[in-house]
Amino acid sequence: MKALVLHGIRDLRVEERPKPKPGPGQVLVRVRAVGLCGSDVHYYTHGRIGDQVVERPMIVGHEGAGEVAELGPGVAGPPVGTRVAIEPAASCGRCEYCTTGRPNICPTVRFASTPPYDGLMCEFAPVEAHQCKSIPDSLSFDEAAMLEPLQVAVHTVNLVGVRPDDTVAVVGVGCIGLGCMEAARVAGAGRIFVTDKLDYRLALAKRLGADEAVNNAREDPLEFLAKRTGGRLADLAVDCTNKAAGAPLAYSLAGVGGRVALVGIPEEDEIVLDAHVPRRKELRVQHIRRSRHAFTQAVDLVASKRLDVASWVTHRVGLDDARRAFDLVAEYADGILKAVVVP
Amino acid sequence: MKALVLHGIRDLRVEERPKPKPGPGQVLVRVRAVGLCGSDVHYYTHGRIGDQVVERPMIVGHEGAGEVAELGPGVAGPPVGTRVAIEPAASCGRCEYCTTGRPNICPTVRFASTPPYDGLMCEFAPVEAHQCKSIPDSLSFDEAAMLEPLQVAVHTVNLVGVRPDDTVAVVGVGCIGLGCMEAARVAGAGRIFVTDKLDYRLALAKRLGADEAVNNAREDPLEFLAKRTGGRLADLAVDCTNKAAGAPLAYSLAGVGGRVALVGIPEEDEIVLDAHVPRRKELRVQHIRRSRHAFTQAVDLVASKRLDVASWVTHRVGLDDARRAFDLVAEYADGILKAVVVP
Amino acid sequence: MKALVLHGIRDLRVEERPKPKPGPGQVLVRVRAVGLCGSDVHYYTHGRIGDQVVERPMIVGHEGAGEVAELGPGVAGPPVGTRVAIEPAASCGRCEYCTTGRPNICPTVRFASTPPYDGLMCEFAPVEAHQCKSIPDSLSFDEAAMLEPLQVAVHTVNLVGVRPDDTVAVVGVGCIGLGCMEAARVAGAGRIFVTDKLDYRLALAKRLGADEAVNNAREDPLEFLAKRTGGRLADLAVDCTNKAAGAPLAYSLAGVGGRVALVGIPEEDEIVLDAHVPRRKELRVQHIRRSRHAFTQAVDLVASKRLDVASWVTHRVGLDDARRAFDLVAEYADGILKAVVVP
Amino acid sequence: MKALVLHGIRDLRVEERPKPKPGPGQVLVRVRAVGLCGSDVHYYTHGRIGDQVVERPMIVGHEGAGEVAELGPGVAGPPVGTRVAIEPAASCGRCEYCTTGRPNICPTVRFASTPPYDGLMCEFAPVEAHQCKSIPDSLSFDEAAMLEPLQVAVHTVNLVGVRPDDTVAVVGVGCIGLGCMEAARVAGAGRIFVTDKLDYRLALAKRLGADEAVNNAREDPLEFLAKRTGGRLADLAVDCTNKAAGAPLAYSLAGVGGRVALVGIPEEDEIVLDAHVPRRKELRVQHIRRSRHAFTQAVDLVASKRLDVASWVTHRVGLDDARRAFDLVAEYADGILKAVVVP
Repeated sequence: MKALVLHGIRDLRVEERPKPKPGPGQVLVRVRAVGLCGSDVHYYTHGRIGDQVVERPMIVGHEGAGEVAELGPGVAGPPVGTRVAIEPAASCGRCEYCTTGRPNICPTVRFASTPPYDGLMCEFAPVEAHQCKSIPDSLSFDEAAMLEPLQVAVHTVNLVGVRPDDTVAVVGVGCIGLGCMEAARVAGAGRIFVTDKLDYRLALAKRLGADEAVNNAREDPLEFLAKRTGGRLADLAVDCTNKAAGAPLAYSLAGVGGRVALVGIPEEDEIVLDAHVPRRKELRVQHIRRSRHAFTQAVDLVASKRLDVASWVTHRVGLDDARRAFDLVAEYADGILKAVVVP
Repeated sequence: MKALVLHGIRDLRVEERPKPKPGPGQVLVRVRAVGLCGSDVHYYTHGRIGDQVVERPMIVGHEGAGEVAELGPGVAGPPVGTRVAIEPAASCGRCEYCTTGRPNICPTVRFASTPPYDGLMCEFAPVEAHQCKSIPDSLSFDEAAMLEPLQVAVHTVNLVGVRPDDTVAVVGVGCIGLGCMEAARVAGAGRIFVTDKLDYRLALAKRLGADEAVNNAREDPLEFLAKRTGGRLADLAVDCTNKAAGAPLAYSLAGVGGRVALVGIPEEDEIVLDAHVPRRKELRVQHIRRSRHAFTQAVDLVASKRLDVASWVTHRVGLDDARRAFDLVAEYADGILKAVVVP
Repeated sequence: MKALVLHGIRDLRVEERPKPKPGPGQVLVRVRAVGLCGSDVHYYTHGRIGDQVVERPMIVGHEGAGEVAELGPGVAGPPVGTRVAIEPAASCGRCEYCTTGRPNICPTVRFASTPPYDGLMCEFAPVEAHQCKSIPDSLSFDEAAMLEPLQVAVHTVNLVGVRPDDTVAVVGVGCIGLGCMEAARVAGAGRIFVTDKLDYRLALAKRLGADEAVNNAREDPLEFLAKRTGGRLADLAVDCTNKAAGAPLAYSLAGVGGRVALVGIPEEDEIVLDAHVPRRKELRVQHIRRSRHAFTQAVDLVASKRLDVASWVTHRVGLDDARRAFDLVAEYADGILKAVVVP
Repeated sequence: MKALVLHGIRDLRVEERPKPKPGPGQVLVRVRAVGLCGSDVHYYTHGRIGDQVVERPMIVGHEGAGEVAELGPGVAGPPVGTRVAIEPAASCGRCEYCTTGRPNICPTVRFASTPPYDGLMCEFAPVEAHQCKSIPDSLSFDEAAMLEPLQVAVHTVNLVGVRPDDTVAVVGVGCIGLGCMEAARVAGAGRIFVTDKLDYRLALAKRLGADEAVNNAREDPLEFLAKRTGGRLADLAVDCTNKAAGAPLAYSLAGVGGRVALVGIPEEDEIVLDAHVPRRKELRVQHIRRSRHAFTQAVDLVASKRLDVASWVTHRVGLDDARRAFDLVAEYADGILKAVVVP
């Protein structure tokens, strides 16, 4: 089978590999769609995220969907042919965090396409049976591949809470930002304000429900939001950028007594915050690590059309063209939001 | 001026009274619409609610809206002519509960049309200036009068929380039940199940967003919900009836680990609960007392058309016909939901 | 080996049974101490709790401690000789409730000495390895057997929360009530008020930290608490009785805006509550189902001497005398609190 | 009367002023003790905290206690002679934050000894009657003056919560750090770890209940805590330093899924945080702004001897020697913790 393998910085190759056999407890999934995540691109351009370093060739991609093709020894299901979304995280199930319902912070979690674990951009992937979640027929494979990033957004809303009529500000409207914005809308947000430096993303955000969109390359978003809200600012501000400047901007957009959620993964290693204003506002800040327990919600919200993820997908490529998609995302090529690789 | 005065059980009279003068801190409101609440009817039919007893003639009604007609001495605003909804509760502002942000449980609160305080079904009502809340022109007086019951529903959702995709069951779909149902929908509820014994109310509930509606005079709502949810039942069950049977039904509809909100005011003095099932489900139960801090949310939700209260109003009568509206509500006359008295 | 087997109402027999072999995943525990729980006695006197019915002979007892005597096939530990407390609940680990960190409400939990599962009042008990929790040498087996009821109290405090200086009222000071009282004290409770109808229990409660103790057979606890608190009543009221009258008493002792925890398991099948006062106080009520994630806390609190469970044990008997201990507990014999059976 | 007046950086003068007259709603307090807060010293050394700048002469000090000496016109009490602690914050009582129970973040709060409002280091201070809180005779004026910083600590514990047996790390054990440590102990903290660079403060912390104390000028506190906790680190880490390095240290000491409270007011204008580790631990961070609703708790905890604030006071000076106390605090003179000025 073909697989997309990262060997080092900017060294991504389509390779022929033997078709894997599912082990005990596993199923083999015929992969039909894999979203290209910012973290995949970050490994491609930097070879690492923080202290997670690509040290040997790794199949990339973790936002995947497909069909069950084969059951491993002793596996009862899901049956061959089942359409599934793939949960990329396999937590240990026994540690303090897993048993108390927080598998997303399991210290020994194995996460697809995070070194040293292979990802899903290949024709057939062996996956633990319990990581395969059956999806309704009404969801396309593209939509199913979007469930993984959407779950991060739903988890964020679950964890920080949105009250009916809350003013919500989202900094950075890539897919995670769009997801947070849409999930906040579903949860009753009153006025949604988004900011980004890319106009086509702001335009999509408005189409998906943002009330106000500001290009922060041209306009000061704090000044804008202060004017629109009479100085009250946001009840909840969410950073979904991949830049160290995102967090302080989110802090500044949150109003007195407000909340901040930090979802984005900065390229930089440090963030710099104002030492006084967050205290005077008595902010509560929640860092977000991937997601937990949000799959059913995510499926239901998409299946019931209350939340649109199909619009996120701007590019579809085969494995052979995938490298070009990585380059487009890396350089923020005009119009690109989410590329889906179809093996 | 004319006023609708309750003298005792079933003794409701339209009386001529001198036009009141607003005192210091007060404004005089030209009343334009007053909703007829179940508690008004309960005083009419029973002369009391629990140990709150009508001991001297009392003007009834507390869901009111109108225009500012005159300012009392030293009052700066709102200016004459302002369209306002009237907050019926005046809390003390100094007790432990008021200062910690819970004015709705202030032990010395004065609540319009709760003995011995006069209500609003009259042409002119003197009201503390801070109880008059300005409303946008896009709201009718009828809608503004519905803000008081709607706030109870919004407060309920604020206090117990609704997560995106939660299954919510509402027992009793009078206005409070409809409000809870609509507020839960705004807050992201996934599947909404309602039950009542009156078909026309169930029909309206479906029109306003309920997914399933069961007439519990004909069908067992627990069996129905269990079948529809594969035994999982509701994440949140809300009792909005005026019967002692409402609470135990809500308890039964909540699933394992679920939540119950008790909003209804039973006619009876005791409720009887199963001694074991709620413990096995480890339910969390929140009793609801009127509302707090929900006015702005309520206005915004109605003004933005995300929540419909206009449909609640089925009858409009003048003061002279108001007694008949009390009788219709008291006997659950077919088709009646909310009567608005227009002085 | 010898085992204490319940055959039906008041039919408890010491029987000779073959020494069990631990199965895969199991260890065999040499039982050293088993506390006699109120639920054991309830099965003894009534043959059932709610719809859980003793239909075939069942070894009783679930508050157990001992030493690991033998490892089942493929079991890595804990090693033979380890002193352990036995977690009586084995939850499924896969359902919605287990994976979200609430194993105590797992619908398919197997709980020792709850029909049809055998309990621990025998010389050797086969137990899943993960249900054996290693205890420090500083804990006696008696204390280790008390960890199971103590965990219920700690879970209660975890779930409802206690703020420094909260006034806490505990209704019923059997072991669960004493545990709640002591856990609340550890969590910072300011004034602790307890009520019971047995003077010797009230005396022990005062020795273990209660500030006020009222015998409700002789004095009205609500009147007493109202006088002591200037009418403010309790921030948190906990029912730990086995009577239907316990819950309404706890509701009445909670003040405006207060919280109620219902831990006790009533002998009756219904509880009757006031239909109005809990709403006017806007109470929040938490039903408690056994416990979760409280073992480490419980061990640490006992080992550090911040919480005394040794004083709970008033009687120690061998298997042959155990039936008499059941009778003493059943009739509330003077001075009895917790009997420990030492096989 | 004499007053201690700050004219500019390092320019602190004892001045003769006319004895003030209490205005309407005010009482005049004969000041008996005023604690010297780090913020007072910061104004003394820098002339500003962030954008709060001393622009005209200001009486310093806001941790005060004394006796009511005179009632203003129309003031009913507390009666002359009442021993009181002085709440330094007068919030507006009408804004969104005040009415929802968060007066500490009222944007128009007037706070004693924060420009342009005078403080309490003088013989007689006019204070709003409701800012005077009666204290029991068992509290000394020194202890009463410590209630203001203690309330910050109690508010912190109220807001972030401490569960029985939580491991708590406190960075910086000046009075606020000692208060947080002691309040956490009262709330059930299991193991308390403190770090500071001053040995005499660490020694006092151990005397007041810290289990482990590390001088971070000599030892790496993260390494120490990791070793002591088997890598689990703290459930709650609290920064109480006045340095920008305090927050990142607190972030690092919090374990996976942990909480951070930021109480300290850094001298610097920026703090620099790791961009990845807090996300991987999914930390929740609460900034703390002064305090709310913690007075009664603070009094009760001190009066009941569960919490010791008397030990905080290391120096007592008259107004004429106060300047020297400012210098000692500013240079961290050996052994100084809290100086109390006795006018």
